[in-house]
Amino acid sequence: MKVQACHKVESNAVEMEGAEGCRVRWLVGEADGAPNFAMRQFEIAPGGHTPRHSHPYEHEVYVLEGAGVVVDGDAERPLTAGDVVFVAPDDVHQFRNSGAQTMKFLCLIPNSAAGKKVTVAPECGVEQGSK
Amino acid sequence: MKVQACHKVESNAVEMEGAEGCRVRWLVGEADGAPNFAMRQFEIAPGGHTPRHSHPYEHEVYVLEGAGVVVDGDAERPLTAGDVVFVAPDDVHQFRNSGAQTMKFLCLIPNSAAGKKVTVAPECGVEQGSK
Repeated sequence: MKVQACHKVESNAVEMEGAEGCRVRWLVGEADGAPNFAMRQFEIAPGGHTPRHSHPYEHEVYVLEGAGVVVDGDAERPLTAGDVVFVAPDDVHQFRNSGAQTMKFLCLIPNSAAGKKVTVAPECGVEQGSK
Repeated sequence: MKVQACHKVESNAVEMEGAEGCRVRWLVGEADGAPNFAMRQFEIAPGGHTPRHSHPYEHEVYVLEGAGVVVDGDAERPLTAGDVVFVAPDDVHQFRNSGAQTMKFLCLIPNSAAGKKVTVAPECGVEQGSK
């Protein structure tokens, strides 16, 4: 059994194309012997966002702190602490912090995500108002 | 994509042998099309606990609110909000609320847990001081 305060887990900048102001901690994963899925915690700075992207595996997300939106295709859906999001495989999605505080959420993925193709989607649906 | 406030998800008493003061919400699962794993939220009343038990699948746990312990075999390890726990397959474990407030945590399991045998362990290691 592993028990750990998550703030003591190493935090790294998310370097993926399209990410801005994002950091990630891998709380539980294959390195711990987790056989099926991994738990990560993301922190997004005010104004920051994850890439607008899709991939052939799911996310299960729980919002811990802050406020923002999840971009669902070309729509924006508001998020606040205590909200849960299921992003199905191949859903185009993006998490954006629209608040003044850090937005913090858990995002879990299957171990089978490793090596799967991630497709970065253009931002125009959100940033040019072409919904 | 599913987005939902978790307090709006149905909460049910945990009826399993050895559980006391526990309620569960299934936030994401196979009913949502989740292909690999399920996210549940547990609430344990002050003095309450999950069964002391083991099973051949893992838990990935994140403590949201409150304070308690996780029984790890015959040892107790303190827990507070922001702690993460990886319970490996076949680890004997129990979550106990030792605080004055409701203890709330996420507990994720693989879909393959369905139908797997759960073994309830005796409480003597904790309650009779025979550590």
